[in-house]
Amino acid sequence: MSSEFALIDRYFKQPAAQHIAALGQLILGIGDDCALLDVPAGMRLAVSKDMLIEHRHFFSNVDPQSLGHKTLAVNLSDLAAMGAQPLGCLLGLGLPRVDDAWLNAFAKGFLDLAAASGCPLIGGDTVKTPHDISLSVTVLGYVPQTQPALLRHAAQVSDDIWVSGFLGAADLAYRIRAGLFDTDQAPTGQLRSETTSIGIAHLNQTHLDQVNKALDWPTPRLQLGQALLGIAHAAVDISDGLLQDLNHILKASHVGAILYEPLLPVAPALFQVSPAVRQRAILSGGDTYELCFTAPVSARTKITELAKQTGVQLSRVGQIVEAQGIAIFDEHNRLITPAMSGFDHFSE
Amino acid sequence: MSSEFALIDRYFKQPAAQHIAALGQLILGIGDDCALLDVPAGMRLAVSKDMLIEHRHFFSNVDPQSLGHKTLAVNLSDLAAMGAQPLGCLLGLGLPRVDDAWLNAFAKGFLDLAAASGCPLIGGDTVKTPHDISLSVTVLGYVPQTQPALLRHAAQVSDDIWVSGFLGAADLAYRIRAGLFDTDQAPTGQLRSETTSIGIAHLNQTHLDQVNKALDWPTPRLQLGQALLGIAHAAVDISDGLLQDLNHILKASHVGAILYEPLLPVAPALFQVSPAVRQRAILSGGDTYELCFTAPVSARTKITELAKQTGVQLSRVGQIVEAQGIAIFDEHNRLITPAMSGFDHFSE
Repeated sequence: MSSEFALIDRYFKQPAAQHIAALGQLILGIGDDCALLDVPAGMRLAVSKDMLIEHRHFFSNVDPQSLGHKTLAVNLSDLAAMGAQPLGCLLGLGLPRVDDAWLNAFAKGFLDLAAASGCPLIGGDTVKTPHDISLSVTVLGYVPQTQPALLRHAAQVSDDIWVSGFLGAADLAYRIRAGLFDTDQAPTGQLRSETTSIGIAHLNQTHLDQVNKALDWPTPRLQLGQALLGIAHAAVDISDGLLQDLNHILKASHVGAILYEPLLPVAPALFQVSPAVRQRAILSGGDTYELCFTAPVSARTKITELAKQTGVQLSRVGQIVEAQGIAIFDEHNRLITPAMSGFDHFSE
Repeated sequence: MSSEFALIDRYFKQPAAQHIAALGQLILGIGDDCALLDVPAGMRLAVSKDMLIEHRHFFSNVDPQSLGHKTLAVNLSDLAAMGAQPLGCLLGLGLPRVDDAWLNAFAKGFLDLAAASGCPLIGGDTVKTPHDISLSVTVLGYVPQTQPALLRHAAQVSDDIWVSGFLGAADLAYRIRAGLFDTDQAPTGQLRSETTSIGIAHLNQTHLDQVNKALDWPTPRLQLGQALLGIAHAAVDISDGLLQDLNHILKASHVGAILYEPLLPVAPALFQVSPAVRQRAILSGGDTYELCFTAPVSARTKITELAKQTGVQLSRVGQIVEAQGIAIFDEHNRLITPAMSGFDHFSE
C-alpha cells in the first residue's frame, strides 16, 4: 500500500537484517520507531552526522553507486578521526523522485561499504523533496572508556604532524569535472593559461582514473584511526582541506604549526599541473578524507611500523609549535604564503 | 574566518556546552569529529532519525521558533513510542541562506525543547542548500536492558488499544492553512459544499488556536512512554495517521484490530466541521504525535491511574483480534469503511 515503506524494505531492509546475526550488539534494526543496540561493555559511544546535498556536494550526474559509498564514507571518516570502531549507521534519504536503477546502485554502494566496515544500516527516514537530493547519515561507533579518543584539543607543542595517504587528487578531479579552475586565491596571475594547461587531455588515463577514484571512492581510515589510539594525540579527517582542518586542531589546542611543503604527500597526478594549482590542491583541497594527526616524537618508530601494517602511507609533514597560526616553508626553507582556504558552506 | 563554523558556534554551541555539566554521561559535545557519551550502565541505546523538508513537511512562512520545536519534537516522539529516555540529539541543518532572525528563533525553539526534555544538542552539520530548507535530526535515548521496550511486534490478541490525547486537530490546521480540503478519499461526494462549510470563519478563535497549536507545537509523550514500560505491549507514535500507524503494529505483530469510532478522542474543534472531514482527520490525519499503544486488559486500572499522574488523557478505543486488518464500528455498531490513508511521501 505504501511506497515509502516499500522503498525502505525493498532497497535497504534486507541487508541490515542480515547484519543482525553478525553484530551481537544490535537488538532491533529497521522497522520500529527506534533502533535498539547495546554499546559493548567498557566502551563509550561516538556519534557523528554529515549531510550531502545535490549541486552542493555532488553533481546530479554522479554515479549513484559511488555516491552511496561516499555518503557513508565521509561519515565513517569522522569515526576514523576519533579512533572509533563502527557500530551502526542511519540514513536520511530525501529524493525528488523514485528511480529504481538509481536507488539500486545507491543502495549497493552504501551497503557494500557498510558491510565492509562492520557498520550495519539500522534505521533512517525516506522523504520526498521538491528539488534536490538531500542525504543525511548518522554514524555510531565506540571507543574504549579507559583510553583517550583522538581529540582535536589534545595536540601538544613539539608533536610531529602526520598525514595519511596522498593529498590533492580529489580536488583536481572536482575542478576538472566542474569544468573550471576557480583560482581566486591562486598566488599567481597566470589564471587563463593555467586553465588551458590543465585540460583533461594533458592528464593520461591512469592519472585521470586516480583522481576520479579519489573523489568518488574515498577510503575512510578506520583501521588506522583505531590503531592510533594510545599513540597519537590529536586527529582530524581532511574534509575541508589540510590547512582548514589542521587549523581546527590548532585552535582547539591553542597551539600553532610549521609545515614543510616538500614533505607533503602529493598525489602523482598533481605533478601534471602547474605548481600554483598543485599547491592550492594540496593545502586547501577538500574531500580527501585522509587523517591529519599529531603524535609525540617518541612515537615515530611505532607510526612507521603502523604504516607497514596498515599499508597506508604515513608522512611526517611538520611540527606543533607554541606560536599561533600556520607557517609553511618551501624546499629552500623560505616562508611561503599559500592559497589558504578550505571549503565553507556559507562563505562565498 | 569560516562562517559555517561560526554559525554552529553562534546559534547552537553555547547551550549544549551548558548541558555538559548537567548530563553526566556527555563527555564531549559539539566541536570535534564526533560527540562522545556514555550510555548509563544497564541501559540499551535507542536511536532514531527523521527528516523535515520545506514545502513537503512545513510551509516556507512557518514560524521558525515553532519549526525548531517541532523538528526536535517529532524525533523525541519516536523515543516516546519506544519508552526511551532522551540522551542527546544531533541536528543536520541545510539552509539556502543565513537569516539571523530566523536562525535565532529556530535555535530557540529547538534548544528550549532540548533543555525541557533533557536531550542536549551534541553535534550535527550545517550545509548550504540550493533551494529548500532540509532538516535532519537524530535522537539518542536509552531503555533498560532488562525490560522489553515498547515494540511494534509485541501486540497480543485481546490487548486493548489505547490512544493518548486527542486526534485530528493538526490535520484540520494543516488543511485550513493549505487553503484546501483535499478529500480524494472522502466517503461522500459533497466535496465542494464541505470545503465551503469549513471556512476559517466558522471556527472561533479558541478552536483555531487549538488546532494551530496542535500542528505547530506538538508535545512528544516522553513521560507517558517511559511510564508505559512494563505495562503496555506495543506502541507507535501517530505521525502518519491513526490507521496507518496502528497498521504498523498489526503487520509487525501479525494480528488485526477492531476500533470503536465513538471511543476515539476527538479534538473539540473537529465538531465544527462536517462528519466526513472529521472522520478523515481522526482516522487518517497525520502530525498528531500522540501514542497509540496496546496493553492487556489486566492493565486497565494502572493505565487509568497513569492518565491522572501524567495529566494526559488516555482513551481505550478498541481491541487486538486474530483476524487481519482493521474493522471500525460506528455508534450503531455498524461496520464502516473509512477514508483509510495516512501520509506517504512517495504515493501521490
